[in-house]
Amino acid sequence: MEKNLSLMTDLYQLTMMQGYFEAGMQNQKAVFDMFYRKNPCNNGYAIFCGLEQVIEYIKNLKFTREDIEYLKNLNLFSKDFLSYLESFKFNGNIYAMEEGSVVFPLEPLIRVESSIIEAQFIETTILNIINHQSLIATKASRVAWASGNDKVIEFGLRRAQGPDAGIYGSRAAVIGGCDATSNVLAGKMFDIPISGTHAHSWVMSFKDELTAFREYAKLYPNNCILLVDTFDSLKSGIPNAIKVFKELKESGIKLKNYGIRLDSGDLAYISDKAREMLDKEGFNDASIVASSDLDEYLISSLKQQETKINVWGVGTNLITSSDCPAFGGVYKLCAQEINRKIIPKIKLSENPDKVTNPDIKKVFRLYDKATNKIKADLIALENEEIDTNKDLTIFHPINTWKKMTLKANEYYVKELLKPIFIKGALVSERKSTMEIKKYCQQEKESLWNEYKRLINPHILPVDLSLNLYNLKKDMIDKIKS
Amino acid sequence: MEKNLSLMTDLYQLTMMQGYFEAGMQNQKAVFDMFYRKNPCNNGYAIFCGLEQVIEYIKNLKFTREDIEYLKNLNLFSKDFLSYLESFKFNGNIYAMEEGSVVFPLEPLIRVESSIIEAQFIETTILNIINHQSLIATKASRVAWASGNDKVIEFGLRRAQGPDAGIYGSRAAVIGGCDATSNVLAGKMFDIPISGTHAHSWVMSFKDELTAFREYAKLYPNNCILLVDTFDSLKSGIPNAIKVFKELKESGIKLKNYGIRLDSGDLAYISDKAREMLDKEGFNDASIVASSDLDEYLISSLKQQETKINVWGVGTNLITSSDCPAFGGVYKLCAQEINRKIIPKIKLSENPDKVTNPDIKKVFRLYDKATNKIKADLIALENEEIDTNKDLTIFHPINTWKKMTLKANEYYVKELLKPIFIKGALVSERKSTMEIKKYCQQEKESLWNEYKRLINPHILPVDLSLNLYNLKKDMIDKIKS
Repeated sequence: MEKNLSLMTDLYQLTMMQGYFEAGMQNQKAVFDMFYRKNPCNNGYAIFCGLEQVIEYIKNLKFTREDIEYLKNLNLFSKDFLSYLESFKFNGNIYAMEEGSVVFPLEPLIRVESSIIEAQFIETTILNIINHQSLIATKASRVAWASGNDKVIEFGLRRAQGPDAGIYGSRAAVIGGCDATSNVLAGKMFDIPISGTHAHSWVMSFKDELTAFREYAKLYPNNCILLVDTFDSLKSGIPNAIKVFKELKESGIKLKNYGIRLDSGDLAYISDKAREMLDKEGFNDASIVASSDLDEYLISSLKQQETKINVWGVGTNLITSSDCPAFGGVYKLCAQEINRKIIPKIKLSENPDKVTNPDIKKVFRLYDKATNKIKADLIALENEEIDTNKDLTIFHPINTWKKMTLKANEYYVKELLKPIFIKGALVSERKSTMEIKKYCQQEKESLWNEYKRLINPHILPVDLSLNLYNLKKDMIDKIKS
Repeated sequence: MEKNLSLMTDLYQLTMMQGYFEAGMQNQKAVFDMFYRKNPCNNGYAIFCGLEQVIEYIKNLKFTREDIEYLKNLNLFSKDFLSYLESFKFNGNIYAMEEGSVVFPLEPLIRVESSIIEAQFIETTILNIINHQSLIATKASRVAWASGNDKVIEFGLRRAQGPDAGIYGSRAAVIGGCDATSNVLAGKMFDIPISGTHAHSWVMSFKDELTAFREYAKLYPNNCILLVDTFDSLKSGIPNAIKVFKELKESGIKLKNYGIRLDSGDLAYISDKAREMLDKEGFNDASIVASSDLDEYLISSLKQQETKINVWGVGTNLITSSDCPAFGGVYKLCAQEINRKIIPKIKLSENPDKVTNPDIKKVFRLYDKATNKIKADLIALENEEIDTNKDLTIFHPINTWKKMTLKANEYYVKELLKPIFIKGALVSERKSTMEIKKYCQQEKESLWNEYKRLINPHILPVDLSLNLYNLKKDMIDKIKS
C-alpha cells in the first residue's frame, strides 16, 4: 500500500556510494549521528517523532528492477555498482531515542553504525521523516500546552504540504499533544481518535439553517456539534442550535458530545455570549469549539481573556508549523574505520555551534531523585559510565565556567539511546501510536514548567563528559595547528 | 505503488455525506469552486499546480473492503450508507485551469459539478494536493525570477514535510522554475532532471581533501562539482579543486559540467575570490554553485552585489516555502439543484473579500493583441461570451470606479477552465511534467515584469462581468433585507 521510498534520496548519496564502492571502501565501517541544533519555534525542547516510519523504511529498503533500470539510464553508474545495488540492504546497527521522547539540541537522537556505503545512503530519508514528524509533534506540544486541559483537535489536512504531510502530520500531532484529528486515513492507519461534524456547505445546502441543524441532529444526536457562523452566530446560529438541543432533549435524548463551533468573528466575544445563551437554557455542558487560524499564541491570548471556548480545532498553523516550517536535523560522520581501527571524526566550522562532537557517543539523562524532573543531559563516550554514588560535576561545553554539581545519591541516570537494529535485524518492539503518545505525555511531565514556557523558556543543560570534551578539544587543536 | 487516498479526508465530509444520503439528497446536483484569496509571499500571481495528482486521485477513488470495515467500526455510519460507499465513485464533471497556468486570487481554478455527495467528498484531497503544489511552484517561480538566467536546483528533500512534500514538492519546483532536483525518486516518477555530486562526509572519509577530490574526479570527470568548504574554502578547498581540474585537463579530458560548490561562509566574498582563482588558471567556464539557506531575497541581494555564483542550490526555504508555508485554497458551494432547477448560492461574511461569487462561472483572460501580455482576467457567468469586435469595459468588483476599457479588435480572449472529467470520464490528455514546465514558462512570459517583481508587485485586475456583479449584488441585498 505504501510507496517504495528506496529511491527517495539525494542523487549525491548514490554518486558517493558508487565512489566508496569503486574505491573499495564499501565494507569500511562508519558511524553517523542524527541530531539538531535549535529547537523549533524557540521552544525549550523538542519531541522526537517518526521513528516507526524510519524503521519501516529501513526494513523495506530494496532497489526494484525498475529502480535499477532508471539508474542505469542515467549513464552515471557502472554495471558492477548497479548489480551491487540489486541485493543492497541495511546490515548495520541503529540506536535511537524512544519515540515520543523529550529531546534537546546537539544530542544524538539516532546513531547509525554500518558500512559507510549503507550509512551514507539512508541519511536523506531518515532526515526527511524525523525532521517532519519531530517538527509537528513539537508544535502540537506547544499548542496543547497553551490549551491547558482543553481538548485540541488537529484540523489541517487541506493545508498540509501534500498527502504525507497530512497523514504523518496527524500522527505526530496526536503524539505531541492533540486529542484527535479530522484525518480519517490517519485514524485508520494509526488507530488514533478522529473527530468532525459538518461544514458551512451543509448549512447552505438546506432551505435554512434550522432545517440543516435539525437534519444533522436527527442523524448524530450523540455527536452534535453545530457550526453556527454561516449567517450570523449570535442572531441566527446560536439561537437555532439551542432550539435544536431543546428538541433533542424533549424527544428524550440524553445529550452528550454536543455543542457549537465558531469559525469566524471575534472568538472571545462570541463565545462569551454563546456561553451565556447556552447556560441560560440549561446547556451548561455544551462544548464551545473554536477554529479559525489558531495557533499557540492566539490560544494563550484568548485563554488569558478567560474565554469560554473549551475545544480548539487547530489547522494550518499546526500542520505546517507555520512560523517555523522546518526542523533542522542533520546527519554527521563521527567515527570511521581506518586500517581496522575505529577513529573519531570531527567537522570544523567557523561557527562554534556547528563543530560536531566526535566519536561514538551515548546520552545520559540526569534526574533529580526527589522530584523525578530532568536536571540535565550529558553526552559521553560510548564506554563511559556514571556512578550515582558519587557527586557528578558537569559543565557547559563552550562557556565552561557554567557548572552544576549533582550530589551523590540525589540523582539517577537513564541512558537514552536504545538498540533498534542490530546487524540489520530489528530488535525493538513496536509500540502503538497511542502508547507513544502516552509516553510523550510522561516525558513532558519530567520537565519543569520553566522549560515548557512558550516564550523565552529556560535552557536545559546539554553538556559533554570530561572525556568527550577533552577529545574534542584535542582534535580541534590538532587540526588548527 | 501509491497509497490509496480515498479515506484521506476530513471526517466531516463522511458525516455530511451520510447526512445527504439519509436526507435523500444524494443525487441532488451541486457546483463547487476551488479558488484562493491571496497570493503566497505577496507575489503578483500564483502557479496552478497539482492537477495531474488530482486526476489520479479522482480516477482511483474507491473505498476498499478494509476502508468500509474501518468506517463500520466507528459506529457512526448506517449499513445502507456503507453499502452505498462500496460502489462509490466520481460520476460528475470537473473543469480546471491548465496545469502550470499563471493564476490570480478569487478566480475559480477548478469547478466541480456533480451530485452534492460526490462533490462534497472530494474537497479535502483536492485542496491538499493543489494547495501544496501551487505553493511550491509559486515559490520556485520567485526563486527562478531572482536567479535570472542562472541554473536553480531544488535541494530540499531532507527538510521537506514528509516524503510526499519532498516528492511532489520537487515536481512543483521544477514546473515553477527550477532546472533540476536532487530527489532521485522524483526524477524517476516525473522524468525530470536530477543533479548532485558529493557531501562533506565524502571529504571527511578520505585521508585528506585532495585525495577525496581526486577519487571523485576519477569517477565523475564529466560531472565534477567539488564541495570546497569542508576545511577552508580559500586556503584548502579551492586550491585543491584547481589542482584536480588541472590533472583532469592534463590527462586529456575535456572538462564540462565542472566547478565548485560553496555551502558556508560569506558566499559573495568567497565566490568572488574563487572566480579570480579559477579564471587565473584558465577555468573560466567552471561553475560556482552555492547552497546554504538560500531564498529569493538572499539570491537577489547577492546578485545585486554582482556575485559570480551561477548555479543556486535551494533547499529548506523553497521546499517548505518557509516564509509562507500554506496556500490558502478553499472550496465553496456556488450553485445547487433545488426542485430540478440549478440555483446560485452565496456565502456571506463580515469581510467583503470573503463573500463568495455565486453561480456557475467561467474565466476569460484578456490579452493585449500588440504585446500578447495579459491585461486582466474576467470572471463571468457560464453562458456569457465576449465579442472582441466591440469595446469591453471592465471594473473592479469592490471599488467599482476603477475601470478599464479594452478597445475593439485590440484584445483577444482565452477561456481558462477546460473540461477534465465529463460524467466521470477523463477527457483531458496527459502532459509530461516537462511539458507542463514549458507551458508554465510561456505563461509567465504573458505577464509584464511589473507583476513578477518580488516585492510589492502590481496587482492584475480580476474583475466580474456586469451580469455576475449584478447577480451577486442582488443576492447580497436579498439576504441582508
